[in-house]
Amino acid sequence: MVEPLRVAVIGAGYWGPNLVRNFEACPETDLVAVCDLDVERARRVLGRHSTVTATSSLEAVLADERVEAVAVATPARTHLEVVLAALDAGKHALVEKPLAASVAEGRKLVEAAAARDLVLMCDHTYCYTPAVTRIRELVQAGELGEIQWVDSVRINLGLVQTDVDVLWDLAPHDLSILEFILPDGREPLAVAAHGADPIGAGRSCVGYLTLPLRHGAIAHVHVNWLSPTKIRTTVIGGSKRTLVWDDLNPSQRISVYDRGVDLASNVTGELRREALVSYRMGDMTAPALHEGEALRRVVAEFAACVREGRSPLTDGQAGLRVLRVLEAASESLGWGGTMVPLGAWK
Amino acid sequence: MVEPLRVAVIGAGYWGPNLVRNFEACPETDLVAVCDLDVERARRVLGRHSTVTATSSLEAVLADERVEAVAVATPARTHLEVVLAALDAGKHALVEKPLAASVAEGRKLVEAAAARDLVLMCDHTYCYTPAVTRIRELVQAGELGEIQWVDSVRINLGLVQTDVDVLWDLAPHDLSILEFILPDGREPLAVAAHGADPIGAGRSCVGYLTLPLRHGAIAHVHVNWLSPTKIRTTVIGGSKRTLVWDDLNPSQRISVYDRGVDLASNVTGELRREALVSYRMGDMTAPALHEGEALRRVVAEFAACVREGRSPLTDGQAGLRVLRVLEAASESLGWGGTMVPLGAWK
Amino acid sequence: MVEPLRVAVIGAGYWGPNLVRNFEACPETDLVAVCDLDVERARRVLGRHSTVTATSSLEAVLADERVEAVAVATPARTHLEVVLAALDAGKHALVEKPLAASVAEGRKLVEAAAARDLVLMCDHTYCYTPAVTRIRELVQAGELGEIQWVDSVRINLGLVQTDVDVLWDLAPHDLSILEFILPDGREPLAVAAHGADPIGAGRSCVGYLTLPLRHGAIAHVHVNWLSPTKIRTTVIGGSKRTLVWDDLNPSQRISVYDRGVDLASNVTGELRREALVSYRMGDMTAPALHEGEALRRVVAEFAACVREGRSPLTDGQAGLRVLRVLEAASESLGWGGTMVPLGAWK
Amino acid sequence: MVEPLRVAVIGAGYWGPNLVRNFEACPETDLVAVCDLDVERARRVLGRHSTVTATSSLEAVLADERVEAVAVATPARTHLEVVLAALDAGKHALVEKPLAASVAEGRKLVEAAAARDLVLMCDHTYCYTPAVTRIRELVQAGELGEIQWVDSVRINLGLVQTDVDVLWDLAPHDLSILEFILPDGREPLAVAAHGADPIGAGRSCVGYLTLPLRHGAIAHVHVNWLSPTKIRTTVIGGSKRTLVWDDLNPSQRISVYDRGVDLASNVTGELRREALVSYRMGDMTAPALHEGEALRRVVAEFAACVREGRSPLTDGQAGLRVLRVLEAASESLGWGGTMVPLGAWK
Repeated sequence: MVEPLRVAVIGAGYWGPNLVRNFEACPETDLVAVCDLDVERARRVLGRHSTVTATSSLEAVLADERVEAVAVATPARTHLEVVLAALDAGKHALVEKPLAASVAEGRKLVEAAAARDLVLMCDHTYCYTPAVTRIRELVQAGELGEIQWVDSVRINLGLVQTDVDVLWDLAPHDLSILEFILPDGREPLAVAAHGADPIGAGRSCVGYLTLPLRHGAIAHVHVNWLSPTKIRTTVIGGSKRTLVWDDLNPSQRISVYDRGVDLASNVTGELRREALVSYRMGDMTAPALHEGEALRRVVAEFAACVREGRSPLTDGQAGLRVLRVLEAASESLGWGGTMVPLGAWK
Repeated sequence: MVEPLRVAVIGAGYWGPNLVRNFEACPETDLVAVCDLDVERARRVLGRHSTVTATSSLEAVLADERVEAVAVATPARTHLEVVLAALDAGKHALVEKPLAASVAEGRKLVEAAAARDLVLMCDHTYCYTPAVTRIRELVQAGELGEIQWVDSVRINLGLVQTDVDVLWDLAPHDLSILEFILPDGREPLAVAAHGADPIGAGRSCVGYLTLPLRHGAIAHVHVNWLSPTKIRTTVIGGSKRTLVWDDLNPSQRISVYDRGVDLASNVTGELRREALVSYRMGDMTAPALHEGEALRRVVAEFAACVREGRSPLTDGQAGLRVLRVLEAASESLGWGGTMVPLGAWK
Repeated sequence: MVEPLRVAVIGAGYWGPNLVRNFEACPETDLVAVCDLDVERARRVLGRHSTVTATSSLEAVLADERVEAVAVATPARTHLEVVLAALDAGKHALVEKPLAASVAEGRKLVEAAAARDLVLMCDHTYCYTPAVTRIRELVQAGELGEIQWVDSVRINLGLVQTDVDVLWDLAPHDLSILEFILPDGREPLAVAAHGADPIGAGRSCVGYLTLPLRHGAIAHVHVNWLSPTKIRTTVIGGSKRTLVWDDLNPSQRISVYDRGVDLASNVTGELRREALVSYRMGDMTAPALHEGEALRRVVAEFAACVREGRSPLTDGQAGLRVLRVLEAASESLGWGGTMVPLGAWK
Repeated sequence: MVEPLRVAVIGAGYWGPNLVRNFEACPETDLVAVCDLDVERARRVLGRHSTVTATSSLEAVLADERVEAVAVATPARTHLEVVLAALDAGKHALVEKPLAASVAEGRKLVEAAAARDLVLMCDHTYCYTPAVTRIRELVQAGELGEIQWVDSVRINLGLVQTDVDVLWDLAPHDLSILEFILPDGREPLAVAAHGADPIGAGRSCVGYLTLPLRHGAIAHVHVNWLSPTKIRTTVIGGSKRTLVWDDLNPSQRISVYDRGVDLASNVTGELRREALVSYRMGDMTAPALHEGEALRRVVAEFAACVREGRSPLTDGQAGLRVLRVLEAASESLGWGGTMVPLGAWK
């Protein structure tokens, strides 16, 4: 039996309590401290009868020799300082999305972790859901064929953030899933972003990303804080099958359709304009997914990576790839939606 | 009792049979002829026991003195020639969407009809559905407040057309609805179009339109021929309420949510970055809609306009407005998604 | 090419127009007359330009030598007289559900048709839908294993009938489907009926049927005229798989779940109380169904049976089986829900 | 500030952990002990770092002077012994549904609590959901008019219990909701139960209850352990409006339809057979419901009742009413579905 990883959670706000609950429930981890500038908040998260340390001092946590690793759930703009301090103190780090407030800052974290041989993991929670795990398996096994189009919608009456726009708030989910499931050679080449701030919030509350992929494929993301109805749906169109992931339908999250359009393969050039097209209208299959909280698997993966000295499924590089698209999207937004090239992705 | 309008249907392909059925069933119209290059197809549409004329000669139809009006359901590229001939022969015209193959051609039709004082009506069928009728009433009565965002999705495993891309095939629906329901002062200012042809069909099979509206509002359209699941949903976000129209849910097509985000109204300039936001979480109402085929109301409106000498709800100008966006979208597509200004809309 | 079957439709009320439309569209049939006590109604169904005979005289139709067969869409209480007259005149007959107003009357029709060697077909329309066709195939191929339970719900804000209760109005659909798909040896043994008339209509507006099947299986039907929401769902639980048919979900009418409960098979007697149970949580498959109007297949089957001299899929015996359950259900209702045995079913 | 109620949870199996979590999170309660025959299970529920007592000794818990009240989450067959012991020790008791294994046992508990002036509360959790709270308000305010019919479906691939059938396992939910929302004068008069055990489990796995209410109204319950799809829907038909509660649709749990059938009110006797009927087709409204865990409100109500010395919303009498129906249902089941009168309900 491997000894449980002794962890401190930094930040007891929106996401922190979920980390606390999972570190407490997971046999591979042992929660030893919760740190928040508001120590009462940290205490409330732990409850009346806990012996876990609650503190407002990050220094104390990082100086605590019991603490092997930290999970950082503070705002993204503080990640550089907090995570760097943790790495400097020799602690492994699990960091909330997005990894940092910019590519430059994110790169510093990646380099610092590498230099100290510490695990730096990005909490791209969705990548650990049974649904995304299965989607990745299906894509990599070629079950969908070549990926032709991806359309992701994540809309809700969400909290209008005071420091980031809707793209930085919500699109990290879609982009981290995209970079997780897309096979090599299908990565985004560029990004065009459109946004709107119709309520006068001072930042985009409605956002659209268009991401041309190689070989004529395309990905598109719609994120929105103003929708009274909640939608979380991603469609992945492939040359063989098309997959629909509806995250709000627990009884049928994934549907794989053996339906699509085929083009006579020997048609080229001008002839394409009159190309013969055929339609497949096959069955649909909804694979059984074991339920299970994704965050539980995040903390288990984190513990396993530290103990085994390996890189996490969603490592710092994955976090950087997401940041690169977000930065380019902000640039595109500033230029009225122009297409901004992304350079090498992986 | 007004005498029924005597009509000939030109084109017995995909849409023609629906026109035939409705002209036959509507008391205000009287079908006298069906014309198709393939006269057998015209006959099949009429059935074994009909006394209605079936012919392959457009000239004969236009020379037939019984015929007061025509309904043209031929491909868009033929509209200029066919509709112009009909107008020249003194026939009123109901024309399938899009009105013509270009703004220039459409304008010729509008001018020809005006010069001859004939009714030119665009068959923007959706505008005659009980749902869109009610949406327009709600918008115009101010029930939604200021329109802030519109998101329209129309995806399906559709027929890949050989002469037009997915934008010209499907977006006329969304654009005609948009121009029908948007109040003056909220019209699109420009359009950016993105498309993809991942199957190598020679034209876009997936398309996205972004349309900035005045006052920071935005409209967005997703049309797609490659989706194995069918979605026809339009969300209209307003400052007071938000409306969701799901055309595939006959038991609840329209849902009006009294939910949204409000900004403290006296916040300006830099302060907006820390603006106070409040959330409304009120009830939802799904107004009762009488069912009824939209096309039946199209042919009744057409007959009424001819008899009353008035302009249709969806006249040639409405058709031109749709064409203007489509043309600009094609231009944007050609330039990699650049934002193309639309000029004056109404 | 076989000559089309020359048909007259008797009754142009609720269902008649659908028969007319399908007889006109089907190449294997030729509509020659429509008969209704209200001849104007018959004319309206045919439209302005039809050469098909409209008449109010049943005698004239039955005397018309062109007429080979009739489709009877008059109220059930008139079936005995109308259908018997048609059979006496040597006409084949397609009869709306229920076959007649009682088992006794239905049996007379079956015997009369047999005596004259004429086709007597029951228009159990649902049995000709692609969904029910597929369900029957799956059941008969053993894909579901042994049928363990069937639960059928058919509720709607329906027309409160003046002559029959909700069981006689709606349950013929469920019962005809049941007798169509259930394999031999799984037929209902008895029926208990419960009903309610909470609006004081003078007859049950809400009805429930419980039908014990052999081997511990059960079927249950809920029919209801008072529901503001429409549900048409049948679940068929089998020892291997369970099928859900949602007729109002055109994109996924049939879902076959490889999920269920298995009992350790060697457990008997008292031990069963502590029996080991295991759960299967496999995939779900939604088979592709070609769309197509069921009534079109009804009229084609009718024509084929006459021409080929064979018995229809839903013959008079099928109609009798439905009547037997309805009669027993009425009896049960009268006795407060007592279980009424059905005797031999097939 | 009232002092928090000091509580021990008895039984750390299926439901116990939920009680533990809510007693820990609720400011009005203070968890002091968890008792389970398997003390390791009790410890696991509490986690590594808790100072709350874990024990396998019920005697120790009842002797513990800190403990003012217990929450009993052991199997129903043990309730008589465990709860009676707790009451004898002067502890207030919150008891899982069903209150006891029989009416006789339940009555002993009610009498014991009354004799000692202790609070006896039944954990009819659903009655504390925002949905049921709102339904009860709407019914009692007359918004639905007279209740005409109730149809409740609770089906799932559930755990086949080894000691109770599906009626005793699941129907307590529906029956407790029914007794909670039905106004006086609309209570069930009798019950008929049908069941099936098609897998040979030794007890019913599929169950139906029919409950005639006064004034021609009816309630019906379908519970089922064998369904691969999960349904939890209750429809409440009223003379003015009809309410649909779909507990699995978090975005629209309650829909209130202003749709229905009206009968001309002055029609009586035989004339009813030809009665004039009219249909209302009004809007639907989905009231906004604040989310919130029902069990949290259960424990808060329990604490408030003890501190205020008042009777809970779901007291022992409510538990007895549910038991009375369950017992009569078992009797009906044994007699092949005969209608068993319930006697006075409230």
